[in-house]
Amino acid sequence: MAKRRKISFINRQRSKKSFLPPGTVEANTSLIAQKVVITIIQYNESFIQETVINNLSELKDYTAGNLVTWINVDGIHDASVIEQIGSMYEIHPLTLEDVTNTDQRAKFEDYESYIVVMMKMLNYDSELHSEQLSIVLKSNLVITFQENQGVDAFSPIRKRLKEAKGRVRRFGADYLCYALIDAVVDAYFNILEVVGDKIELIDEQLIAGPQPNTMQVLHTMKREMIYLRKAVWPMRDMIGTMERSQTELIKPSTDLYLRDVHDHVVRVIETIENYRDLINGIMDLYLSSLSNKLNEVMKVLTIISTLFIPVTFIVGVYGMNFEYMPELKSPYGYAATWIIMLSIMLSLIYYFRRKKWL
Amino acid sequence: MAKRRKISFINRQRSKKSFLPPGTVEANTSLIAQKVVITIIQYNESFIQETVINNLSELKDYTAGNLVTWINVDGIHDASVIEQIGSMYEIHPLTLEDVTNTDQRAKFEDYESYIVVMMKMLNYDSELHSEQLSIVLKSNLVITFQENQGVDAFSPIRKRLKEAKGRVRRFGADYLCYALIDAVVDAYFNILEVVGDKIELIDEQLIAGPQPNTMQVLHTMKREMIYLRKAVWPMRDMIGTMERSQTELIKPSTDLYLRDVHDHVVRVIETIENYRDLINGIMDLYLSSLSNKLNEVMKVLTIISTLFIPVTFIVGVYGMNFEYMPELKSPYGYAATWIIMLSIMLSLIYYFRRKKWL
Amino acid sequence: MAKRRKISFINRQRSKKSFLPPGTVEANTSLIAQKVVITIIQYNESFIQETVINNLSELKDYTAGNLVTWINVDGIHDASVIEQIGSMYEIHPLTLEDVTNTDQRAKFEDYESYIVVMMKMLNYDSELHSEQLSIVLKSNLVITFQENQGVDAFSPIRKRLKEAKGRVRRFGADYLCYALIDAVVDAYFNILEVVGDKIELIDEQLIAGPQPNTMQVLHTMKREMIYLRKAVWPMRDMIGTMERSQTELIKPSTDLYLRDVHDHVVRVIETIENYRDLINGIMDLYLSSLSNKLNEVMKVLTIISTLFIPVTFIVGVYGMNFEYMPELKSPYGYAATWIIMLSIMLSLIYYFRRKKWL
Amino acid sequence: MAKRRKISFINRQRSKKSFLPPGTVEANTSLIAQKVVITIIQYNESFIQETVINNLSELKDYTAGNLVTWINVDGIHDASVIEQIGSMYEIHPLTLEDVTNTDQRAKFEDYESYIVVMMKMLNYDSELHSEQLSIVLKSNLVITFQENQGVDAFSPIRKRLKEAKGRVRRFGADYLCYALIDAVVDAYFNILEVVGDKIELIDEQLIAGPQPNTMQVLHTMKREMIYLRKAVWPMRDMIGTMERSQTELIKPSTDLYLRDVHDHVVRVIETIENYRDLINGIMDLYLSSLSNKLNEVMKVLTIISTLFIPVTFIVGVYGMNFEYMPELKSPYGYAATWIIMLSIMLSLIYYFRRKKWL
Amino acid sequence: MAKRRKISFINRQRSKKSFLPPGTVEANTSLIAQKVVITIIQYNESFIQETVINNLSELKDYTAGNLVTWINVDGIHDASVIEQIGSMYEIHPLTLEDVTNTDQRAKFEDYESYIVVMMKMLNYDSELHSEQLSIVLKSNLVITFQENQGVDAFSPIRKRLKEAKGRVRRFGADYLCYALIDAVVDAYFNILEVVGDKIELIDEQLIAGPQPNTMQVLHTMKREMIYLRKAVWPMRDMIGTMERSQTELIKPSTDLYLRDVHDHVVRVIETIENYRDLINGIMDLYLSSLSNKLNEVMKVLTIISTLFIPVTFIVGVYGMNFEYMPELKSPYGYAATWIIMLSIMLSLIYYFRRKKWL
Repeated sequence: MAKRRKISFINRQRSKKSFLPPGTVEANTSLIAQKVVITIIQYNESFIQETVINNLSELKDYTAGNLVTWINVDGIHDASVIEQIGSMYEIHPLTLEDVTNTDQRAKFEDYESYIVVMMKMLNYDSELHSEQLSIVLKSNLVITFQENQGVDAFSPIRKRLKEAKGRVRRFGADYLCYALIDAVVDAYFNILEVVGDKIELIDEQLIAGPQPNTMQVLHTMKREMIYLRKAVWPMRDMIGTMERSQTELIKPSTDLYLRDVHDHVVRVIETIENYRDLINGIMDLYLSSLSNKLNEVMKVLTIISTLFIPVTFIVGVYGMNFEYMPELKSPYGYAATWIIMLSIMLSLIYYFRRKKWL
Repeated sequence: MAKRRKISFINRQRSKKSFLPPGTVEANTSLIAQKVVITIIQYNESFIQETVINNLSELKDYTAGNLVTWINVDGIHDASVIEQIGSMYEIHPLTLEDVTNTDQRAKFEDYESYIVVMMKMLNYDSELHSEQLSIVLKSNLVITFQENQGVDAFSPIRKRLKEAKGRVRRFGADYLCYALIDAVVDAYFNILEVVGDKIELIDEQLIAGPQPNTMQVLHTMKREMIYLRKAVWPMRDMIGTMERSQTELIKPSTDLYLRDVHDHVVRVIETIENYRDLINGIMDLYLSSLSNKLNEVMKVLTIISTLFIPVTFIVGVYGMNFEYMPELKSPYGYAATWIIMLSIMLSLIYYFRRKKWL
Repeated sequence: MAKRRKISFINRQRSKKSFLPPGTVEANTSLIAQKVVITIIQYNESFIQETVINNLSELKDYTAGNLVTWINVDGIHDASVIEQIGSMYEIHPLTLEDVTNTDQRAKFEDYESYIVVMMKMLNYDSELHSEQLSIVLKSNLVITFQENQGVDAFSPIRKRLKEAKGRVRRFGADYLCYALIDAVVDAYFNILEVVGDKIELIDEQLIAGPQPNTMQVLHTMKREMIYLRKAVWPMRDMIGTMERSQTELIKPSTDLYLRDVHDHVVRVIETIENYRDLINGIMDLYLSSLSNKLNEVMKVLTIISTLFIPVTFIVGVYGMNFEYMPELKSPYGYAATWIIMLSIMLSLIYYFRRKKWL
Repeated sequence: MAKRRKISFINRQRSKKSFLPPGTVEANTSLIAQKVVITIIQYNESFIQETVINNLSELKDYTAGNLVTWINVDGIHDASVIEQIGSMYEIHPLTLEDVTNTDQRAKFEDYESYIVVMMKMLNYDSELHSEQLSIVLKSNLVITFQENQGVDAFSPIRKRLKEAKGRVRRFGADYLCYALIDAVVDAYFNILEVVGDKIELIDEQLIAGPQPNTMQVLHTMKREMIYLRKAVWPMRDMIGTMERSQTELIKPSTDLYLRDVHDHVVRVIETIENYRDLINGIMDLYLSSLSNKLNEVMKVLTIISTLFIPVTFIVGVYGMNFEYMPELKSPYGYAATWIIMLSIMLSLIYYFRRKKWL
Repeated sequence: MAKRRKISFINRQRSKKSFLPPGTVEANTSLIAQKVVITIIQYNESFIQETVINNLSELKDYTAGNLVTWINVDGIHDASVIEQIGSMYEIHPLTLEDVTNTDQRAKFEDYESYIVVMMKMLNYDSELHSEQLSIVLKSNLVITFQENQGVDAFSPIRKRLKEAKGRVRRFGADYLCYALIDAVVDAYFNILEVVGDKIELIDEQLIAGPQPNTMQVLHTMKREMIYLRKAVWPMRDMIGTMERSQTELIKPSTDLYLRDVHDHVVRVIETIENYRDLINGIMDLYLSSLSNKLNEVMKVLTIISTLFIPVTFIVGVYGMNFEYMPELKSPYGYAATWIIMLSIMLSLIYYFRRKKWL
């Protein structure tokens, strides 16, 4: 039996919060013991420095200057940390509420002094895992909030920053913001590939014959596709709004790259739709193979029954104990009975042949 | 057997009214005995007062002044009450007709001197309950009309008002109006969560094996989803129209909050669509498991029948009473018959093995 | 067996006409014997008069003056009558063609000197009946053309006119026109209610068990829903165009009422869509209950067959007449056979129990 | 078995052409022997003349003057004819290519000096036939190209022209062009009527019981609906573009008529969609009636088997030849056995009754 | 069993790349041994020359002058070749990345100094093959990048160029670009024709009776349709954007041709949708024929079983060995038994006849 997935479509926390006033930053108490890790990367074309800070008060030492500063907050369950960062960088309470509430749709919002981008980071090992990512972009500053440390799509970007490869060090904070979004979208492609391979596998297994749990596996994949679609679909709008937005925080030179990531998102969406079609197709195939199998089973039963039921009746007749049964006395009775029975069986076989059942 | 739900998709009252002229405020006589409860809350940042009035004439004592006044009318079945309030606050007859007719779509209407917002309040205990809510917003005044006292989404707001928590006391009547809508939408999330849990449960039960009433339960949930969608879908338009409207009753500072509740409605709609997909998926799974089960049952029948029908024929042959049957006289006849029968059965078992039926 | 419905989706007359030049007013000869009834109602706020005229020439006596005149033509099969009225009131031949051709979509057309509104009047007694209604609105004059006298939605309006209830007597011809459309739409709600009750009934019957004709009844309802949708769907556009039209024949004060009836049409359309979903859901439920029933039937067959086929074989063995069968001589043979047979049956029962078939 | 249809969804010629440069007028050699028939009708309000010409050179004798000239070309397989006409009337090579390539979508194109309208003429006798029609409208000149002489929708127009009925003789070439389109669309209604009757027939037959070929017939009709939709769907756009086009070749007075034919096309499209829904509904009904029938068959089998299998076992027991079987000696043994067997059968009948299987 | 297709919906290379910075041109190492073939065709109206170059450095000898230059690169797996060409002709790194990444959607991009068009070339021999084509259009220069040499749609264009047929030699580089796109789209029609023939074939086979692998074949075709749709659907947008683009590289005279190819793409898309509908229809037909077959098989089984099971019981009764069985002594017992048995069988046959099972 397939292992059950853990994706839920509605977030239980949401409803708990729902009786608090809007804009309330709320702690997830079950995770409170877990430590929030804050990492700061500062760089320009010639310089780079990575620091893990232990105390929120250290944050203010990292005033941006001419360096691009990337503050990565791993863990959003501790409301006080989020609130302190929020007040330090003048982030609106509604934004902070969205950051801590992990049931957001992907969205772009322009608060004039900063912009926020929210999306889902996904990865896939045996089952689908999801984590909310919020990116706050201010001038020369990027703050990222991740749910915990399980799903991280950013290591290639850190590597590229350190190795000074590509444009990422030359360009500003808006390019970093783009690069982070691009990394998240790239991770979607990895998931689609894994899912694509699973679809291929099931499709091939089905030729050998239907398995009882095939439908269950397909159902789980369909659920995952529904979840994926829910996560990715609003990203098209999000990036579109971002491209069209009038904010000065995104330089025109970055627009070309946003167009590129927009393209990628469209491809992800199309592939998800194609996978849904494929999964539905395989389900139809599976159900028809079940029908075929039933037909075959019933044909075997019908042929065997039809061949033997009439002749079994005949042998029953001559097993009766009537005193007056002239055939029993005849020396040819037994042979004649066999001849009759064989003729019946052969006629039936001929009939089945003509019906293409044999 | 699942308990039957009580949601009806068309309101019987509607048709009774339909032979009255448009704009007629009509009493629901079956509820006439039930008392209409009118509660008045008046507040500003430093002051709050809640009163239940017993006589409509007392209403005029609560002239707004600088206080924000919230008049909550519980019970819309008494036409004279609605008409008196209507004339007291200069509400158009068409609005009053909509208030009393409980089969409205969610809508926003701007009557210049006031705006009206209509929507469904829902809650869910074993089955779905629905109640119509109409909010009339005038300057410094909010009047809410609720159908009866079964479904109330407003207690957290009353609590917040009294405890002076959040922005609700600082901001004006338009913020209160927003807060009420937000509370209604929050209640939708609670319903979705309950439904989501039920979906999970059925999905898990299905692995153990299909129950005869699974389909019935799924069908009931599908009905509820159709009903929910009908209630929530027009809310997107409603809030969108509200955001774009030129009315001066809604201050620009409230727009951000309306955008937020718009977002929530979109999420509710998406989740409903996802649930519909999930329910359909589970239905497919259920039907395929029925087919699987049938296949299994038929395989057992076919194997047993096919194994025994031919050999039963053979024993029948030697049960015949012909006088001339040489095999019967042979001392090896009995043993030979057993050997033949066992060979037949073993060949059939081998055949079934190769067909993967065993 | 459900009685068959009489709704046809294409009108036979249409094709007969199709070889005549466009704009031809054509008589339906099969109905020619039936009398055309022309009723005239004239009113203002203080005066009302209803006349049935017997001769078309009398029509010209009713020059409008300051009174609002409503000419109702019951029966459109007599081309000469329609043509005379057309020329008397300067109605375009294309309009007259549309009036007599009963296969129109709901539409609004502005011919400057008058406007035309066409729609379907429906009623439902055991089956769905449809009748085309055309309303010509000129200044102070409303002419209505109805197909015959079977379906009439206008009696409540006549009553209100006579009793001077509501706004209908105070307002002008455009309000009358609105009131007529509103009455037609109100009749749709009545139909939806009847259909809704039927859906409820079938849904409840299905819990007791599927009936052979359930599918037939559902199919008929689905047909009716398709027909209803075809009739109502274009009305949304029609009223929308009417609201936006620049014609001076509709006063601004009537716009509010058109918005209201537009709202009603949207609700009718939504309910039709919901009913279609519900009917499809019930069909799925029905088909799954058929599968369940088949499974149950086959389980009974399989259990009985599997229990008795092996033991019947055994008793067959000891019914053979071989001379040398040592078991037959044994005094314990009979008892031992019973013991073996009972063990086989009990093992099988245990097996079925474990499979949850029993 | 239903006769197979001949509609193909892609035109084999298309691909042959595809290796020729665009704008190539290509002959269909298989039809080359067939004669191209060119008919010229010239008329004004008082004069009309119809000529069949045998030689293309005669064409130039028919210089338009004040008369409206309608040149009808029956047969487009002879490329040289098309090319000569093309050069004679200054028609663009791309237009000529479209005229000869019979796999076009319905479209309207404005080449400034002339406009082209392309569409499918359809008729239906036992199966669906399709023919491409291209109409070139120049000032005072209409040239129509038809594929061959099988499907002709224009005889009513010729008749009206000759009998000077209706507006067709008074109005110009653009009205003729409209009248031709209208005639084509009228033919669609005839087809829909035939199809509608077939749907009715099948629906009624289904009540009597499912036929093995019902599904085949429905499938053929569904194919035809897909084909029809493909032909008609782009006509809506085509006429819409035509209405909005700025060409001076279409006089404003004709616009009203184009709006009318647009309306007809919308009705055709809606009816096609309704028919598709109906056909799908009948398919569902058919499949459910198959399931019902299977259930009934299996119930008969199960009841008979279940009634007789246990008692057959009992009689088998007392057919055994054990020497020691006390019951056989008992004078009441036989009667007791009968009583036991009858009790078993009656209990089973009672059980089936309670299960509502009998 | 149908041969399995090789189309994958996501490109494995994509994910490998995804950890490289955007704009990285990446080599496909598995193909690195394969030679990149670069062909140059230069022409004007009176002159044409085709050269295969062996060394990239030779490329610069072909400075365009007044000739139109077409550089065709067969093989995009060698990153250094692509990068050199890119720097030679000033192509943006993002374009080069798209050229080498074979998982692009069809798209048009305007980089001011050049435009890029990307699409899929497809062909079909027993299964569907796909190859990415990128066209870079600069002034007087067309560079095409093809994946490898398996799928080539351009030979007819080369032939036309050499034979100076059609407009292709007279017109400039933009017409060549159009002609290449047109050739790719023409190849889609060829595929659709092959698929259409396969659909016809399966449809006809189905009348003879369902094959076990029919569903598998249909499923494979459905997959191919999904893939085709994915490839062709974005081409509509691509050509639309191209038509509307402000680039000076495309002369107004070419617009007419782009409109034509746009038309073709729309027809391809419509045909794909129609094929999907047809395939779904055939699937339904297949499933219903399976049900029909099962019904037939079960009817045979039920008739035979029902006819013989009761009479086999009767002969069993008189095979019992009770000492006291008066019937056995009667001289008419045997004959009476036969009469009873025949009556039972005849009644059952009559019953089956009435039920239309025989």
